[in-house]
Amino acid sequence: MSVKVITVGEKILGANEDKAKENKKRLDRYGILTINIMSSPGAGKTSLILNTIKHMSKKTRIAVIEGDVASSVDADKVNAVGIPVVQINTAGGCHLDAFMVADALDSLPLDKVDLLFIENVGNLICPNNYLLGEDIRLMIASMPEGDDKPLKYPAMFADTDVVILNKVDLQPYLDFNEKSFRKVVVGLNPDVTILPVSCKSGAGMKDWLDWLETALKKKQNK
Amino acid sequence: MSVKVITVGEKILGANEDKAKENKKRLDRYGILTINIMSSPGAGKTSLILNTIKHMSKKTRIAVIEGDVASSVDADKVNAVGIPVVQINTAGGCHLDAFMVADALDSLPLDKVDLLFIENVGNLICPNNYLLGEDIRLMIASMPEGDDKPLKYPAMFADTDVVILNKVDLQPYLDFNEKSFRKVVVGLNPDVTILPVSCKSGAGMKDWLDWLETALKKKQNK
Repeated sequence: MSVKVITVGEKILGANEDKAKENKKRLDRYGILTINIMSSPGAGKTSLILNTIKHMSKKTRIAVIEGDVASSVDADKVNAVGIPVVQINTAGGCHLDAFMVADALDSLPLDKVDLLFIENVGNLICPNNYLLGEDIRLMIASMPEGDDKPLKYPAMFADTDVVILNKVDLQPYLDFNEKSFRKVVVGLNPDVTILPVSCKSGAGMKDWLDWLETALKKKQNK
Repeated sequence: MSVKVITVGEKILGANEDKAKENKKRLDRYGILTINIMSSPGAGKTSLILNTIKHMSKKTRIAVIEGDVASSVDADKVNAVGIPVVQINTAGGCHLDAFMVADALDSLPLDKVDLLFIENVGNLICPNNYLLGEDIRLMIASMPEGDDKPLKYPAMFADTDVVILNKVDLQPYLDFNEKSFRKVVVGLNPDVTILPVSCKSGAGMKDWLDWLETALKKKQNK
């Protein structure tokens, strides 16, 4: 008699992938550009979202899903600037999954949204395995984390569409070799876009906003 | 008929805890002080270890277990300064567990070690759930990550013995409110020791080394 082996991880990931496809179809129906933002804790996910809202919310209708292990600190900040936001607390879970996002979508006015940011849980490992239904996978690397992060967390860098290299205002005080960072990232992911920015000083924000405008137009013309 | 429910997570954690107790007994037999170091990616785990080696390795016999998703970047640095080191690559796994550490212990000269650092995978969530057999749980919070991290990753801050607040050399260039950081950490964990340091400038290193000397003496007198 043969024994059927079910690998729990694969089963979970398969179910997640199906749900992510459903989410994607639902978001596509409304023409919403959806960006899954991943990074280490404190790399600047919320800062990037708040800065983008500041520059774009007059002409682009933005909504946000905030994923956190605990607290609603980030959702409160987004809510304070008048943007529709849903907080997902994972109660210890180290990543968002497509089922959580499906629930969150139920609470958003999708017919009034052009751009949806999904801020994942701060973690450079697990979120990478769970598609959510996004168009774009974006990761933020924070300069103070050091230039060796792509060597140490290669999967996240390999699978992303865009790397925001944040906190470049601190570069004068760090031993960060941007050339070697770029070399490893491009080695892992030849098609990636790397955008150095500082959410604090505003450096590089124009490049990011231009990139985002292009992605929005591409989505709307589909 | 009653149905027996086995929660996979609990079963795994239970087996891990048993193995951690075994590791602890084994390390205790040799009188080795064992410290499990946890943090976000790039907060300074390896820098703290290398700095401590620099100051203490003449009188204290140190060994290191390096945990990483991929690469041996950190183990190579430790090896270069002549300290026994074992690299564990988790191949995508987001934390070390007690079984991995048990294997690593087999490769270390335990009868010639006083102090063992276990550098966990860079992650502020999952490593917290897996005891390894350590005496001391140490976490590093990096100042550029922001003062709100204890609110957002409370479990890690609640369960640690000591918080190293690293990269204080960057404080002049950051909006980091140390008072509010300390207030939340102590609220979660009233008995915690908080030690601000800069592995780069050396600020605060004496306090850390003194704290460590005291812990070593306590272990050796047991």
